[in-house]
Amino acid sequence: MRDSPIVASVDFDADGAQHGFLRLPYSRDDSAWGSVMIPVTVIKNGEGPTALLTGGNHGDEYEGPVALFDLAATLKPESVAGRVIIVPAMNYPAFLAGTRTSPIDRGNLNRSFPGRPDGTVTEKIADYFQRVLLPLADNVLDFHSGGRTLDFLPFAAAHVLPDKMHEDRCFAAVKAFGAPYAVKMLEIDAVGMYDSAAEAMGRVFVTTELGGGGSSCARTVGIARRGVRNFLAHCGNLDADIEASPSVWLDMPSDDCFAFSEHDGLIECLVDLGGTVVADQPVARVYPTARTGVAPIDYCANMDGILVARHFPGLVKTGDCVAVVGVTIEDA
Amino acid sequence: MRDSPIVASVDFDADGAQHGFLRLPYSRDDSAWGSVMIPVTVIKNGEGPTALLTGGNHGDEYEGPVALFDLAATLKPESVAGRVIIVPAMNYPAFLAGTRTSPIDRGNLNRSFPGRPDGTVTEKIADYFQRVLLPLADNVLDFHSGGRTLDFLPFAAAHVLPDKMHEDRCFAAVKAFGAPYAVKMLEIDAVGMYDSAAEAMGRVFVTTELGGGGSSCARTVGIARRGVRNFLAHCGNLDADIEASPSVWLDMPSDDCFAFSEHDGLIECLVDLGGTVVADQPVARVYPTARTGVAPIDYCANMDGILVARHFPGLVKTGDCVAVVGVTIEDA
Amino acid sequence: MRDSPIVASVDFDADGAQHGFLRLPYSRDDSAWGSVMIPVTVIKNGEGPTALLTGGNHGDEYEGPVALFDLAATLKPESVAGRVIIVPAMNYPAFLAGTRTSPIDRGNLNRSFPGRPDGTVTEKIADYFQRVLLPLADNVLDFHSGGRTLDFLPFAAAHVLPDKMHEDRCFAAVKAFGAPYAVKMLEIDAVGMYDSAAEAMGRVFVTTELGGGGSSCARTVGIARRGVRNFLAHCGNLDADIEASPSVWLDMPSDDCFAFSEHDGLIECLVDLGGTVVADQPVARVYPTARTGVAPIDYCANMDGILVARHFPGLVKTGDCVAVVGVTIEDA
Amino acid sequence: MRDSPIVASVDFDADGAQHGFLRLPYSRDDSAWGSVMIPVTVIKNGEGPTALLTGGNHGDEYEGPVALFDLAATLKPESVAGRVIIVPAMNYPAFLAGTRTSPIDRGNLNRSFPGRPDGTVTEKIADYFQRVLLPLADNVLDFHSGGRTLDFLPFAAAHVLPDKMHEDRCFAAVKAFGAPYAVKMLEIDAVGMYDSAAEAMGRVFVTTELGGGGSSCARTVGIARRGVRNFLAHCGNLDADIEASPSVWLDMPSDDCFAFSEHDGLIECLVDLGGTVVADQPVARVYPTARTGVAPIDYCANMDGILVARHFPGLVKTGDCVAVVGVTIEDA
Amino acid sequence: MRDSPIVASVDFDADGAQHGFLRLPYSRDDSAWGSVMIPVTVIKNGEGPTALLTGGNHGDEYEGPVALFDLAATLKPESVAGRVIIVPAMNYPAFLAGTRTSPIDRGNLNRSFPGRPDGTVTEKIADYFQRVLLPLADNVLDFHSGGRTLDFLPFAAAHVLPDKMHEDRCFAAVKAFGAPYAVKMLEIDAVGMYDSAAEAMGRVFVTTELGGGGSSCARTVGIARRGVRNFLAHCGNLDADIEASPSVWLDMPSDDCFAFSEHDGLIECLVDLGGTVVADQPVARVYPTARTGVAPIDYCANMDGILVARHFPGLVKTGDCVAVVGVTIEDA
Amino acid sequence: MRDSPIVASVDFDADGAQHGFLRLPYSRDDSAWGSVMIPVTVIKNGEGPTALLTGGNHGDEYEGPVALFDLAATLKPESVAGRVIIVPAMNYPAFLAGTRTSPIDRGNLNRSFPGRPDGTVTEKIADYFQRVLLPLADNVLDFHSGGRTLDFLPFAAAHVLPDKMHEDRCFAAVKAFGAPYAVKMLEIDAVGMYDSAAEAMGRVFVTTELGGGGSSCARTVGIARRGVRNFLAHCGNLDADIEASPSVWLDMPSDDCFAFSEHDGLIECLVDLGGTVVADQPVARVYPTARTGVAPIDYCANMDGILVARHFPGLVKTGDCVAVVGVTIEDA
Repeated sequence: MRDSPIVASVDFDADGAQHGFLRLPYSRDDSAWGSVMIPVTVIKNGEGPTALLTGGNHGDEYEGPVALFDLAATLKPESVAGRVIIVPAMNYPAFLAGTRTSPIDRGNLNRSFPGRPDGTVTEKIADYFQRVLLPLADNVLDFHSGGRTLDFLPFAAAHVLPDKMHEDRCFAAVKAFGAPYAVKMLEIDAVGMYDSAAEAMGRVFVTTELGGGGSSCARTVGIARRGVRNFLAHCGNLDADIEASPSVWLDMPSDDCFAFSEHDGLIECLVDLGGTVVADQPVARVYPTARTGVAPIDYCANMDGILVARHFPGLVKTGDCVAVVGVTIEDA
Repeated sequence: MRDSPIVASVDFDADGAQHGFLRLPYSRDDSAWGSVMIPVTVIKNGEGPTALLTGGNHGDEYEGPVALFDLAATLKPESVAGRVIIVPAMNYPAFLAGTRTSPIDRGNLNRSFPGRPDGTVTEKIADYFQRVLLPLADNVLDFHSGGRTLDFLPFAAAHVLPDKMHEDRCFAAVKAFGAPYAVKMLEIDAVGMYDSAAEAMGRVFVTTELGGGGSSCARTVGIARRGVRNFLAHCGNLDADIEASPSVWLDMPSDDCFAFSEHDGLIECLVDLGGTVVADQPVARVYPTARTGVAPIDYCANMDGILVARHFPGLVKTGDCVAVVGVTIEDA
Repeated sequence: MRDSPIVASVDFDADGAQHGFLRLPYSRDDSAWGSVMIPVTVIKNGEGPTALLTGGNHGDEYEGPVALFDLAATLKPESVAGRVIIVPAMNYPAFLAGTRTSPIDRGNLNRSFPGRPDGTVTEKIADYFQRVLLPLADNVLDFHSGGRTLDFLPFAAAHVLPDKMHEDRCFAAVKAFGAPYAVKMLEIDAVGMYDSAAEAMGRVFVTTELGGGGSSCARTVGIARRGVRNFLAHCGNLDADIEASPSVWLDMPSDDCFAFSEHDGLIECLVDLGGTVVADQPVARVYPTARTGVAPIDYCANMDGILVARHFPGLVKTGDCVAVVGVTIEDA
Repeated sequence: MRDSPIVASVDFDADGAQHGFLRLPYSRDDSAWGSVMIPVTVIKNGEGPTALLTGGNHGDEYEGPVALFDLAATLKPESVAGRVIIVPAMNYPAFLAGTRTSPIDRGNLNRSFPGRPDGTVTEKIADYFQRVLLPLADNVLDFHSGGRTLDFLPFAAAHVLPDKMHEDRCFAAVKAFGAPYAVKMLEIDAVGMYDSAAEAMGRVFVTTELGGGGSSCARTVGIARRGVRNFLAHCGNLDADIEASPSVWLDMPSDDCFAFSEHDGLIECLVDLGGTVVADQPVARVYPTARTGVAPIDYCANMDGILVARHFPGLVKTGDCVAVVGVTIEDA
Repeated sequence: MRDSPIVASVDFDADGAQHGFLRLPYSRDDSAWGSVMIPVTVIKNGEGPTALLTGGNHGDEYEGPVALFDLAATLKPESVAGRVIIVPAMNYPAFLAGTRTSPIDRGNLNRSFPGRPDGTVTEKIADYFQRVLLPLADNVLDFHSGGRTLDFLPFAAAHVLPDKMHEDRCFAAVKAFGAPYAVKMLEIDAVGMYDSAAEAMGRVFVTTELGGGGSSCARTVGIARRGVRNFLAHCGNLDADIEASPSVWLDMPSDDCFAFSEHDGLIECLVDLGGTVVADQPVARVYPTARTGVAPIDYCANMDGILVARHFPGLVKTGDCVAVVGVTIEDA
Repeated sequence: MRDSPIVASVDFDADGAQHGFLRLPYSRDDSAWGSVMIPVTVIKNGEGPTALLTGGNHGDEYEGPVALFDLAATLKPESVAGRVIIVPAMNYPAFLAGTRTSPIDRGNLNRSFPGRPDGTVTEKIADYFQRVLLPLADNVLDFHSGGRTLDFLPFAAAHVLPDKMHEDRCFAAVKAFGAPYAVKMLEIDAVGMYDSAAEAMGRVFVTTELGGGGSSCARTVGIARRGVRNFLAHCGNLDADIEASPSVWLDMPSDDCFAFSEHDGLIECLVDLGGTVVADQPVARVYPTARTGVAPIDYCANMDGILVARHFPGLVKTGDCVAVVGVTIEDA
């Protein structure tokens, strides 16, 4: 297979703090010899494990990028043991556009793994993480939030994995992160995900959902900022105490967690995030917008639990997920 | 002046509940003899005052439309005294597109009054309200929220007016509405606003800001739904008790309330809505996105107060308002 | 008022056949010193009346342009008396784009009269016809068809006018044109029309609707080609016999002629053009497209008559005119 | 190979009439957890053959969708024997957009077979028909028309097939359909077609072309509606007499049937659909639109026959097919 | 008339160097409370004349912006007498987009004077220069180049004016500027120009054309940089010697200077800028691109002279100016 | 593998001059049975070698198309020996759009080899050259220039090849071409290039860069026109003397030739094309455009040499190549 066309301007083996770029040549109508320049920071201090910290896997999710641009600017090599690699905006074209997918090729980076060195821009980014960055890492933290069209309760999560020792190490890191909620995920269709790529290499992998709506707030950024430091301390990269913060553990046991709209219209959320619901309780209502005086349609929860996620925009389309219910469980 | 080209399919003088359209002929490439069909409901029961209830003046603000589509479908003529006219989505093309302004002509309806019968689609809508609907009304309630790019504390508001008796009637209606916050507004530049058009005719006029981000939630929709019923009870259209709910009163005394970004970047809100701030306290931080390792820029409050509004999207552009501070006052 | 910025490359006073341009300077991003070049032909042979023949007033109507590009290429000065001015594509940018309105400014030329010399491109074209070409003309024939979104029975038409001698001259020309149908039009809202501009100057004015759908066929082009030669013979510009062809005369007496859709969906025409209908007979059916198994909505004729026009595309939007019924009358 | 990501909300094995959706998860910028919801109806009554009826393979062809939305809403299980599966709009995103290809990925569904479960949205639809629906079917009827850019004589058709008994069964179904014309097609390049996919599985497959221009009319919808009932009766799903209606049989023997434009311009059709032509007779004329006074270019038939299809829009581009000639043959 | 909505963050009356913004509120779908922030520099040192230096009047012309961003960053108050106001990118939205006109409203700033305080964004900018900045200025230098679609010989220019003393002062400043060429312009249609607005107030006004193609080079930037310093020295703002550099003086006496294409195609320039031409000499050739083997069309000079300007892009459209010829004259 | 879907209207084996098309069927929303028609000329006179001459591989490079449309229209069969195949605009959709890549699929033809017969339009073109035209050719000349975003010193070039006799034949042809500069290229990443495809078949292959900016001028077109005739004479297709014109030979030895911007902004070229530079000398300067008064960033040459290429547009983006330095060498 061809080498990645991406060239890093930082030396991953050098001690100290380096701020540079992953330069991806991208020839196009408005720049024949142009490039995508993905910001990257490497902070290294002697031997030790490598943490790979990423945000902007989807371009419209902000708690991770805020925490990581901040961390990259403030973390001192002398306070680190081993190596911390920070890419605050993985799908950088999507991040600049403020969109889930890349404006260049509409690529959803988190469904593009393992990528291709001669593929689209998004596939080239996936390939670089697959073949260059993940192999350098021991522990991986990838920040997500709901983006412009979903809103989530703030949680960290890991996947149920075939190797239970591997799974345990992941959940230990989720616990250390210390978000208000923690989720045990059974991914039905993990094909193409960054998560799966990292897990298949045996890496400790933690993901999050910390809010949504294409925005962030002081509260959720605080969760991200504290979580990443806890994660680094847990991984041995940072000599600091973990700010203990017990999480409520949740499970999403089946497809019954999800409710989908079968109508276009104006949506009214009948329960707010974190609210308790019982099976058959209406959780969202859709008003047809073509005329007044007609009855709205109610969508109900399929199980008891709490509202974990919801459709965000004020209008909804047929086929959109309107609500997700999770079930409280014992600590994983 | 020419008559409005808009034709209503409802009879504003007939008793009972009617659901129909304001039909605005709109010839265009994809429909030579097409029309914009704005939903309207009239509910009338004998003599009495007329309330004009509107949402969707800006197309991406949702508490008003949810409350009004609901009210239009559920309000019974027999429970009404006088007349209630409901237009849940004034700038209907903008509402369908989920955008602040009209996708047809980019018109901001709330800066298009008094409108023109031979102008753009947005100007024709303004003209119809100016010359047909406002003259029918005694009391006017126009719902706003922050839209996709701003987020607000939930409040109802009225303007400082030259005629103090007129002003008093407006603030009495604000009080009746019963939102968590109530604002006394001194509009610097009221040219072209629906508010000003209604006030110039001597109408009682109440406006709101009930949330934002291009979404709504159960809590803010609840405020809107309770507020409109309180308003109708206050105006004598509904024989019901007002659900008493005292508001915190706020003032926005000068341009110093507003902070604007002078940088493009990734924004971090340092204070959440409703939080207390003191002068010179940083309220928002902007991270340049071109590279890691550079210091962010802080924007500070210019006065003591509470955070009333904020920029919503995760990215910010030079010139965007990042934060608004208000001052707590005695009941207006 | 400023002079028109349009400069003709032909000399309207010279004998012979000239093919040139109306050059309209149009500075834009992709040509700082560019122009719109509207093709024009002048064929003159000594003294006599002037006929002004136009097509492409709307850019997606084709019988007129075909007949007039053909006529411009084949009409010999020696067979003409007086002057024939041919502009086969008045709103030339719209014609090149195949759209009703101008892609430059979305201007509907037939609602832009009298135009402005310092307005949009479309307004500059209107102004040139208003102040330069119409004053040169005695008789005006303007070809229309239904365009991409409407389909018509083929007819020529003139307006009911306050000056009955003027009206008689117009209807005599309609009769000479010899389309299968002839229509007596009472324009409710004639503001901005080319028709009105010409009639206000006392010109004989004939308009047509000869088909539609954004296409033409051999049959309808034949009607146009024969009609324009009949018109020129009638006006004294061509020494030829009029090919007699009696028309069926129709009236559209009121707004009841029109039926509008109040639903989006898939449309089924229940009657084809020229078919006889009676009041309350369903003429079009709209199927909601969001799901199967729901009943369609029928739209009915409001009066007895024949189907004169219909919505053309397979999908229909709320507010679109779905059908037009006309009433057969005696020869005007 | 992965399972199809599409989930049907109907049970193909249950008796009765069910109206539901084929839900295809489609994550995108404006809906992270959105779906394409393709309407589907299953009507089943005991044992018997399965008919699969489809429209909207190309999104701008309307006789099929009208007949099938109608049939889905009106066909009673008790009048059916066996099973009828109806998908009125196969390429549903294209159908909603009124375009030949999908607005999501520009996919031409009828060139996307066998599809891919991890491909584009259009490829996922093809894969679902390939691996789920076609295997359920015995007889397949797929409605086509000319779409926005072509117009056809109304015909049903089947392909010349290597297995003559298979071919005979197909032509028997074409005959039963009873369109005004019937065509024996020799597909030069059948790669990627739904037709070929069905035929390769040994299914009886009938296709149609029933009009075009992106519209339909009462006459052509009548052909579709009668044809589908005849087809179901012929297949044993409906206990009804076939409305006998003999077809004129046509052949398109070679590439000489087709004439292509080598010029951009305004097109004049010199012969209408169904008209008789002889070799070297001009069938279409193209006028250059840049100027008046230049000679048009004529395009001629390459063989004797009748005009079976034509370019529809009023403008034509270099490379467009302008006319298709077919040859009358004996009943297949 | 309303005040300008633009607020300057600099104090035009304060001594020293200030770098700030002209903030123009601009509410839009992606920023309800957004602004256009036009960079401005004021450098003042005591009493003395005011020079107003501008670039980016058209957004794709670069010599001026380069020279002025450079000057703004390097000019010291202590080396200045009086006041220098620098706006390197007047039509700032156009400048950021790299287009002649504003991407917001397609406004050509240099045809928008005197502007309107309640008009489009471009009209608001014009109004601010008209009513705020021009009244502050004594001498005005406005940089232009050919932009993306034209290329020019480098020249400075002033207009023939009714007041010959005024004209003399302008030409003296042109001479001081010291470009390789100097042009005496007789503007046919000066309506809406910044030039005319400044001249009507009696200001000394110098304009330039320094290259084009939407680029700049070391040579042309050198002309701009030296020219602006010479201009400031000439106006008394800078105590420096004028770098003497005699210009070749040119006149453009009539419309015969210009040649326009009447064909779309691929353009070949037959003479390069500055080359000598004689009347009827071909200066440009247009190849039709639809096919090979056809003869190109030649466009000829209408007079003797030198080639002053040319169409820049490789393709040309009907109506584009292909070449401009100027005539060498004695020093103005 | 499937045959190419492209059909040539010319007979490559017939003597004489033929002008025709490569017809590539392209079904799309605006033409269901449309085609891309790529102009081609074949000029043949008896036996002899075949020269394949191409331009428009990138659609915004003009010296080649001008020279080749001209040659196709003027070269007489009787002056030719063997065969000359001319395709002036290989990526014809890109050429018509004036863009580097195809507007249909954004394909960069010169990175699409060997192409696919069932791929995108651009891949189909590549496949046709790969499997049909290149096998017919002995010698290949492919014209390039810098396009809209780069500008080059005018040169012809060939690649360092593993077979030195093959390389020698290529450099002999470069020498014959006679451009002002000649370049010896060591392609790092030649995957997908037309060059590599031709070289892998053992063809003599010459490429050029003759200017740029999306324009051409009399001087550079003169180089192309003389070069192609020299090339044909050298190859034995034209019985003419080679117009001797010694080139300056250049090498681009390593990645150090290239300088990339790490900032967005307004670019100033500090050295013009052909200018001498020394290592560490600033060659380009980038001004931030967000505000005045900040220092620009300088980009320096990494080696001694002359400026061979530069970024063209006035604005530059992070990741764009700003300058290329070459080293003068002895004749290859």
